[in-house]
Amino acid sequence: METQMLEELEVTIRKGLHIIKFNRPSKKNSFTAQMYDGLARLLNEAAVDDRIVITALTGAGDFYSSGNDLTNATKFIADGDIIESTKESCNRIRNFVSALIDYPKILVAVVNGPAYGIAVTTLGLCDVVYASDKAYFQTPFTKLGLVAEGCSSYTFPRIMGISKASEMIFFGHQMGANDAKECGLVSQVFPHTTFEQQVWSKLEQFVQMPKQSMMCSKHLIRAQISEELHKANEAECKELGERMHSEECITAVFQILNRRSKM
Amino acid sequence: METQMLEELEVTIRKGLHIIKFNRPSKKNSFTAQMYDGLARLLNEAAVDDRIVITALTGAGDFYSSGNDLTNATKFIADGDIIESTKESCNRIRNFVSALIDYPKILVAVVNGPAYGIAVTTLGLCDVVYASDKAYFQTPFTKLGLVAEGCSSYTFPRIMGISKASEMIFFGHQMGANDAKECGLVSQVFPHTTFEQQVWSKLEQFVQMPKQSMMCSKHLIRAQISEELHKANEAECKELGERMHSEECITAVFQILNRRSKM
Amino acid sequence: METQMLEELEVTIRKGLHIIKFNRPSKKNSFTAQMYDGLARLLNEAAVDDRIVITALTGAGDFYSSGNDLTNATKFIADGDIIESTKESCNRIRNFVSALIDYPKILVAVVNGPAYGIAVTTLGLCDVVYASDKAYFQTPFTKLGLVAEGCSSYTFPRIMGISKASEMIFFGHQMGANDAKECGLVSQVFPHTTFEQQVWSKLEQFVQMPKQSMMCSKHLIRAQISEELHKANEAECKELGERMHSEECITAVFQILNRRSKM
Repeated sequence: METQMLEELEVTIRKGLHIIKFNRPSKKNSFTAQMYDGLARLLNEAAVDDRIVITALTGAGDFYSSGNDLTNATKFIADGDIIESTKESCNRIRNFVSALIDYPKILVAVVNGPAYGIAVTTLGLCDVVYASDKAYFQTPFTKLGLVAEGCSSYTFPRIMGISKASEMIFFGHQMGANDAKECGLVSQVFPHTTFEQQVWSKLEQFVQMPKQSMMCSKHLIRAQISEELHKANEAECKELGERMHSEECITAVFQILNRRSKM
Repeated sequence: METQMLEELEVTIRKGLHIIKFNRPSKKNSFTAQMYDGLARLLNEAAVDDRIVITALTGAGDFYSSGNDLTNATKFIADGDIIESTKESCNRIRNFVSALIDYPKILVAVVNGPAYGIAVTTLGLCDVVYASDKAYFQTPFTKLGLVAEGCSSYTFPRIMGISKASEMIFFGHQMGANDAKECGLVSQVFPHTTFEQQVWSKLEQFVQMPKQSMMCSKHLIRAQISEELHKANEAECKELGERMHSEECITAVFQILNRRSKM
Repeated sequence: METQMLEELEVTIRKGLHIIKFNRPSKKNSFTAQMYDGLARLLNEAAVDDRIVITALTGAGDFYSSGNDLTNATKFIADGDIIESTKESCNRIRNFVSALIDYPKILVAVVNGPAYGIAVTTLGLCDVVYASDKAYFQTPFTKLGLVAEGCSSYTFPRIMGISKASEMIFFGHQMGANDAKECGLVSQVFPHTTFEQQVWSKLEQFVQMPKQSMMCSKHLIRAQISEELHKANEAECKELGERMHSEECITAVFQILNRRSKM
């Protein structure tokens, strides 16, 4: 077993099982710029690392991840060159999402607690999603003046049907773990107390199965939609760039930070 | 608040929320030729009306809508020029469905009671569908000698999987509100007694959220499938035109009207 | 009523209802080479037989079907010309799947008991799937060193969402009848004791409905995805051919046969 820390990501490899843990529990594992870049790099490296059969994404502490760190957004607003800095931020997200689309190994989300924003949308790019019964899912794009990302404009309607996808993406509906299972976003929900034990024991078994077979099946599935996923990622990131310096977004972010500073 | 009546459609606009109520309760809100044209015109006008953020479709009385008014069909049969009149009817349906496909604002179906035929199929073109627990859903195309319309040949298999879609489209299976939620046709089911109150209060909140964000997210989703939806609409309406003057359809319609006249 | 036996397939036609029963209960109705060819031929003939409105697939005895007969695989391994014999086997599967894709009549799976492998994947190519509550579903491709077939790389993610599809295809997850209904693979689950009676009585009613209407609706649905289904079938069979003489597959098959011979 081998564990290393990289930019608030804890990485473990044991017998074919590769675990990337979002390790920023004091900030609900929200993603910093460094974490996006780190995740993209880790996936690109694991893609060509023959030891790795299954990669699991999970969070340290109570949250899976609260998504994009809002202070990323305030930086653009504070920054002199807002156009340039939103562009940089969109590139970062695009690269991370792109690495997920192209990832050839089996990718499992081990959702140990609540997930927000891009930590929810990217579940649609994972192969299998297991969740604790304490998990719930929310994508508050509209409230923040933003738009669908992480290919959710493509994956969500296809996974859960247009009605539930729209309710989440447009209205920021918070979905519980059991509803997420019912609609197909999640495969299985486990009691929180035994969640980790049950899931890791499953995955330790699965990594021992014929790995070429798993990767070939994944390639058959992914090859059919890969081009459309990259197109969706491009379209979303382009729109996200526009939205980030829109009045709606700037107003929304200021209101939230104002409320926080008063607490 | 502003309310007007147009061809048995009651239209209300209050603070960004645009409500189109099918208002023909004595005929279970079935759609007349005038209602199809009225709906298409209202949607095309609302598309460019800056006041409107969310449009809600709902029904007056016990039914959401029983779909196409069967007397539309008897007119073709009675009419001397059946080819011409079925063509006209198909154009009418095509234009209504086309307006739904292209509608850029958020479209919510507030399904207050049972829905049949095109009032069910067009739910797949709405963004979000909320239903009373008294609602149920049926598309009796086969019994009438007709075929799938409202883009259901495209949307139903994608929303609910091919098996449930086929059961509805081919066999006219009547689906209850809870099954409709389970399979993704509906997002949420509410007790009938509090349905209206709960849904309108939700929508009144949602219209206050950043509207550009919602419309941009909708555009991202719709742009990916818009071309395919229009193709499905064309193919369905072409086939519908053929079916309308088929022996199967004429026999079926006469049987139903005969049964009604004996009641 | 007319019943004939063909290569362990029992074929009945009664009033528009065409029943193909996998009739090899001593081997859990697993498919031999002759059965694949027989099924493809029966479907191609029924496609142009005007008497037939609905075709039902079902199994004799306790199982629906345990899928591909493993002794098919051992033949390739034993055979001198492994390349040639795997090619032959893949052609056989491709032709059977291709006949399912192109089948123009209504195709209903009457799943009387457990189903494995290609007997599960091809459910996604049926129109409607009814299941006994004793049925369950498993696709152990990975364990056998094989890959997704029967267009499951296309149909499964679209029916049940990527997470449940991946769990079945990559990890061989066994899905119960009720879960299969929840995720849309199955339309309705019936108590085993009344299953046959309820389903056949339904289908006997459905064959009396306007058949042109049903076939036109099916054509509208199928025409949109037919090309993609054939592409998926080609890609899967090509990969399957490679996998069949891979070390992973040969090792897996030997292990299983070894275990069986020790029992």
